[in-house]
Amino acid sequence: MTEHYLDNSATTCVSEASAQKALQLMRTNYANPSSLHSMGFAASQELESARQTVAKLIGADSAEVYFTSGGTEANNLAIFGAVNAHKRAGNRIITSAFEHSSVYESMLELQKQGFEVVFIKPDQTGSINAQQVVDAVDSKTILVSVMLINNETGAINPIREIALGAKRKNPKVLIHTDAVQAAGKTEVKVSRLCVDMLTLSGHKIHAPKGVGALYIKKGVRILPRNFGGKQEKKLRPGTEALPLIGALGVAVQELDIAKSSDTVKALKDYTIQKLSHIEDITFNSPDNSTPYILNFSVKGIRSETMLHHLASMGVYVSSGSACSKGGKSHVLSALGLDADTADSAIRVSFSKHNTTDDCDALIEGITNGIENLARR
Amino acid sequence: MTEHYLDNSATTCVSEASAQKALQLMRTNYANPSSLHSMGFAASQELESARQTVAKLIGADSAEVYFTSGGTEANNLAIFGAVNAHKRAGNRIITSAFEHSSVYESMLELQKQGFEVVFIKPDQTGSINAQQVVDAVDSKTILVSVMLINNETGAINPIREIALGAKRKNPKVLIHTDAVQAAGKTEVKVSRLCVDMLTLSGHKIHAPKGVGALYIKKGVRILPRNFGGKQEKKLRPGTEALPLIGALGVAVQELDIAKSSDTVKALKDYTIQKLSHIEDITFNSPDNSTPYILNFSVKGIRSETMLHHLASMGVYVSSGSACSKGGKSHVLSALGLDADTADSAIRVSFSKHNTTDDCDALIEGITNGIENLARR
Repeated sequence: MTEHYLDNSATTCVSEASAQKALQLMRTNYANPSSLHSMGFAASQELESARQTVAKLIGADSAEVYFTSGGTEANNLAIFGAVNAHKRAGNRIITSAFEHSSVYESMLELQKQGFEVVFIKPDQTGSINAQQVVDAVDSKTILVSVMLINNETGAINPIREIALGAKRKNPKVLIHTDAVQAAGKTEVKVSRLCVDMLTLSGHKIHAPKGVGALYIKKGVRILPRNFGGKQEKKLRPGTEALPLIGALGVAVQELDIAKSSDTVKALKDYTIQKLSHIEDITFNSPDNSTPYILNFSVKGIRSETMLHHLASMGVYVSSGSACSKGGKSHVLSALGLDADTADSAIRVSFSKHNTTDDCDALIEGITNGIENLARR
Repeated sequence: MTEHYLDNSATTCVSEASAQKALQLMRTNYANPSSLHSMGFAASQELESARQTVAKLIGADSAEVYFTSGGTEANNLAIFGAVNAHKRAGNRIITSAFEHSSVYESMLELQKQGFEVVFIKPDQTGSINAQQVVDAVDSKTILVSVMLINNETGAINPIREIALGAKRKNPKVLIHTDAVQAAGKTEVKVSRLCVDMLTLSGHKIHAPKGVGALYIKKGVRILPRNFGGKQEKKLRPGTEALPLIGALGVAVQELDIAKSSDTVKALKDYTIQKLSHIEDITFNSPDNSTPYILNFSVKGIRSETMLHHLASMGVYVSSGSACSKGGKSHVLSALGLDADTADSAIRVSFSKHNTTDDCDALIEGITNGIENLARR
């Protein structure tokens, strides 16, 4: 059976060069980057080289890039690190109602701790309205955290407008964006976005799972979450996962964002065009969404039923965020979808490796599913 | 130049089978373990298989093993997770004065937060006296965290006696041990140690850097440090670093603890015997210490000077913990060493791959250094 992997927002395949870099760093350059001898120094040079590559990707200085074990850790570090460092200045935090669970659950935890968290819902366009965020910012607001691209619908949020507006209203407020579904996929530059912190993840851009990074603008102070050695300027202690970090560096070097974007845009357009002929399909991805993600609902057929049906035909998609593992999607609820539509949502997510064959297999699987699967 | 790597307590070389497993998991089994389709399920089976292997190593149930990004994260999760879950029961914590920085710095942070932290110094034997720990436990004590084997001197601590005594005095107290220098190197069984939590790290036992695990005894409640998806039962959310976790599983399967221990014991005995003929050498490792670590001081020659001299001859050792990266060692201070002795300490750490050739090269380097290096 030919396999059609269309779950690239959950994770991507690792590029061969990236995997080979990890292998090299496990086999030959295995010393501890903190060791003071020459083998340690060689390892630390690999670390700094990867840091420069990641920094360049987002237009940052390498001193502003901190490696983590992934997007979840980077989001937690940004949010709790910022809030703990600045809680004397206020206790209000603004976020969106459709963040990834690593931001959303962190915000619920902060609420429990007594912080006032304002969840801005996406408006009728499916994206966050910048003015609504700015309106929510007051003199006691210490953090705004809004994702750049939503992981379930692909909605693109106006982070630059949010950042500029929020800073105009309260120059002390820190701006964080979870750019896990954006960095390395579309053009992302921290100076353009005007953010103080930005999260990215390796395994969404053909690096291995287990590595991510947090950009922290020079001069922005946040507190560590973990305590220990001097790694990552003591902000993220612990022996660095050098094989993964080096692999991330190589994966980033291989990126051709313009080319990949064109490829997936053509695939998304093709899929929409084909699916739009099917009566029972409604699209959940807004017009202003990333070409990498297409979310739609198949009337009357539960997401999981369709997902397993598609998998049986070798087509791999998801019902929402992999991290929620089948739980009810707070993202689709925030969009105001009725329960039936939300429960029948399918997220298709593309990568540069996909072809129209994959889309055809998907469409065939959906059509076949609509004909044969049990309705609710 | 032949290289002699004697810095195995900083990190070990990755076994070829372990590296190949990581490569396989990057190349073919790359799906997200949380994805609901069959590719995700295959990835999740790899995850659970590694969990079983690690559990077996320490005599635990696989449901008691939580993967982390390494020893530092596992130690932080254990300590803050336990303290935050049980702070209503008391605010006193007992630890040793010569923990790894990931425990030591966490304890300093807890002190800042208002907890009463008691640091027990090693006694004249170089190890922690169990009775002193037990004496320090009172009805308000919520956590005891003492490392199993010290990372700089190799001192072995009586964790079982500490755990039994502490629990007898206060049955509610939780016992954590940092077993990073012990698990996979010497026989470590959680039931024998009577601990509630135990930390281990992959890269000290021929797995790659970036993966570790925390054992949490069934029924013991701790709070998460990070918030997000449902991975690791929500205690450690974030997409799992599957290539590293799988590689850890294979590295553990390859372990032959008895054989490795015999090998390094012979090497340590050989080295001690040779070094003991040199007048300027004093041994800092106590009699009751792991065969994997030998710490000694070379009178009048600073650690870093000797370390760089040895590295120039292809012999790689350390001046103490890699994580402290040349900082003053709180471990050697806790031992009561005078400043000159502490400043001239050398840590040699063996693995099963070392031979007497490595020891000979070390001894030649030390002898040569004593003859040629500048004295303070």
